[in-house]
Amino acid sequence: MGRTMTDDFERMWADLTPIGRSAASGGYFRQPFLGAETELRAWFVEQAVARGLDVEADGVGNVVAWWDPPVGVGSEAGTAVLTGSHLDSVLDGGAYDGPLGVVSALAAVDLLRSRGFVPGRRIGVSVFAEEEGSRFGLACLGSRLAAGALSWGDARELRDRSGVALPDALSAVGLAGESVLSLADVGTFVELHVEQGRDLVDRGAPVGIASGIWPHGRWRFDFAGEANHAGTTRMEDRADPMLTYAMTALAANKQARLAGARATFGRVEVTPNGTNAVPSRVVAWLDARCSSDEALAGLVEAVSRQGLDRAGRDGTSLEVTAESVSSSVVFDAGLAASLAADHEGGDWPVLPTQAGHDAGILSAAGIPSAMLFVRNPTGVSHSPAESAQMSDCLVGVSALADTLERLAQGGAR
Amino acid sequence: MGRTMTDDFERMWADLTPIGRSAASGGYFRQPFLGAETELRAWFVEQAVARGLDVEADGVGNVVAWWDPPVGVGSEAGTAVLTGSHLDSVLDGGAYDGPLGVVSALAAVDLLRSRGFVPGRRIGVSVFAEEEGSRFGLACLGSRLAAGALSWGDARELRDRSGVALPDALSAVGLAGESVLSLADVGTFVELHVEQGRDLVDRGAPVGIASGIWPHGRWRFDFAGEANHAGTTRMEDRADPMLTYAMTALAANKQARLAGARATFGRVEVTPNGTNAVPSRVVAWLDARCSSDEALAGLVEAVSRQGLDRAGRDGTSLEVTAESVSSSVVFDAGLAASLAADHEGGDWPVLPTQAGHDAGILSAAGIPSAMLFVRNPTGVSHSPAESAQMSDCLVGVSALADTLERLAQGGAR
Repeated sequence: MGRTMTDDFERMWADLTPIGRSAASGGYFRQPFLGAETELRAWFVEQAVARGLDVEADGVGNVVAWWDPPVGVGSEAGTAVLTGSHLDSVLDGGAYDGPLGVVSALAAVDLLRSRGFVPGRRIGVSVFAEEEGSRFGLACLGSRLAAGALSWGDARELRDRSGVALPDALSAVGLAGESVLSLADVGTFVELHVEQGRDLVDRGAPVGIASGIWPHGRWRFDFAGEANHAGTTRMEDRADPMLTYAMTALAANKQARLAGARATFGRVEVTPNGTNAVPSRVVAWLDARCSSDEALAGLVEAVSRQGLDRAGRDGTSLEVTAESVSSSVVFDAGLAASLAADHEGGDWPVLPTQAGHDAGILSAAGIPSAMLFVRNPTGVSHSPAESAQMSDCLVGVSALADTLERLAQGGAR
Repeated sequence: MGRTMTDDFERMWADLTPIGRSAASGGYFRQPFLGAETELRAWFVEQAVARGLDVEADGVGNVVAWWDPPVGVGSEAGTAVLTGSHLDSVLDGGAYDGPLGVVSALAAVDLLRSRGFVPGRRIGVSVFAEEEGSRFGLACLGSRLAAGALSWGDARELRDRSGVALPDALSAVGLAGESVLSLADVGTFVELHVEQGRDLVDRGAPVGIASGIWPHGRWRFDFAGEANHAGTTRMEDRADPMLTYAMTALAANKQARLAGARATFGRVEVTPNGTNAVPSRVVAWLDARCSSDEALAGLVEAVSRQGLDRAGRDGTSLEVTAESVSSSVVFDAGLAASLAADHEGGDWPVLPTQAGHDAGILSAAGIPSAMLFVRNPTGVSHSPAESAQMSDCLVGVSALADTLERLAQGGAR
């Protein structure tokens, strides 16, 4: 056929490049269950069908394309090898976070076939829905449902910023909700992802392996005060929740620096948000991550306490609600070590990450999981500046194919 | 007829109560050139027509209902007496700010007629458009255009938060733009308004008179940084504009307290506004007011300087743009004194206000102007909690009628 892995990967990458891209910023808006992300899911199904893979799709936007062993080759139940990532993005995000793992998985299947590999176990290429939590606020929504970490009964209550309930958002793009695909047959999960930092640049490696994921979560901070006229109300007569918020945002930054952790207020909603009115309410979301569960609880506690102290002085109130908290994840150490070993130029680095991933959800659900990271020259992620070099991407595909080959052979992994 | 001033006022007030009211907050959403505010303007025209007044409406939403002297009574050009206010509200505002002045003006006309008063000069009841600046960002848009303080050429470039240009917003509700009514015939302007503080409560007076308006303005603060992943980006590698904004908001509060002035950040827009992304940009609007033009310039300068210092430390940038600045207004002192004198229980207080009003625009344009304030028990304004007692409102109507009677007699005022 004359086609090479490079052709396959580059062609697919070119297919995706324009979808959901903002002409203004160059960033991507691929929120779940809307135009661009729905187009990407349709594209994925097309790609799977074109490869003769069996498509298993559920009612919440998760899709797996299965490559089954030939008829007559017995595939032991519970040993399937799953690989993939997600197709949604944060608001104004980068091209690589998510799609790189999906495209690399399809390209790895192509590469294995071009090598004449015949799987002894089922290989699935997966796309999990709403990984970023950019619309319904709960990161890894699709994989949480599939892994049984979230019930449909709880998920159906989720609403987006406009008040649209999840079941309505799903039905608007022809998804029925309720039914969720089962991961019962999955024995191993491998997710390839663009690196979201510069460790691989510093270490001179094109690819790295994840050791685990920091505990992390999202907390909603509700600051309430009293709306009033911005001109006539004396400063000392105000109950201005913007001040309480501002001080809390600075406190979060300081606490995270002191703890060697991460704390961010990246989302704020002000009511009524008028220039000449003291706000009645400011709602802000804290994203916090630490190296241990205890440190994370301590960080959020410290930020909340400083916010409450300031609320007392401002005459405002503060309520803190945990929206999602993910405990520490430690990936399968043997799997990580085998993925890291024996590469040209030495072993690849094994590193922790501070970012949540579907692989963390599956790992927490008891499925041995691993992650491959592809070097990101800018180190920037969740931004149009996110990037990866084509040559590194192809090393990633090749490493993923090698991994699948090893895991999906007839014998033990 | 048996109808009394109380009937007239209460009936009109009851007409307006449900229009644009939020069931959730009890506050009003009467943004210019949208449903509720358009309904209010139509209501006003109906009321004027029912009273046999001549309606003069322009292409930008300003309306004056004229009560002309009887045929044969020569009304000297340039001596008309105008009274009125506005019908738009801030987002989630109160019932009184604006409509109280319009309804009181109509009720004052009713009262004068019931007294058998025959005007020797034209009396106009006015409604000026977009007084709050809640949609197009420029307060007193309609009166600025009418007074010649703003050209249609500049106004047509204004856009609302959704990017809708003023001419398109106008044409969506059947207004043609361009044509603006003339105030050339106006010799005096009197605006009745709910008080936006508690001075009249403290002084035990139902009504007060304005001495002048503090200098005030709006400045846009553009904080720019670098979007990045909220989990993987080390605190020390960030350029987070939210931090620069937070510190600037606290600095504005502190500077205003020190200066006995007012400074508020009540409106904030964050890009991309996602929980797990360090923002690339925060835009916030400073509303600042001081007792002198110099003090106001000094306050904004001090806040900007502190913001720029912090931007240097955060690796972000800050650009400050004045969107509108109104100089100090001193109302006609003789007019104010005559309005304040000779009431039951002594003279009414004469007070400065920190709020901008159409009366300030007309005064700055050389039209002798005055303002009557009606006591507000909560002192709260730009909020659903804004209030006035019916008995105080009726004292206001009566005082306004007395004022119009004196000003619109055949002789000198």
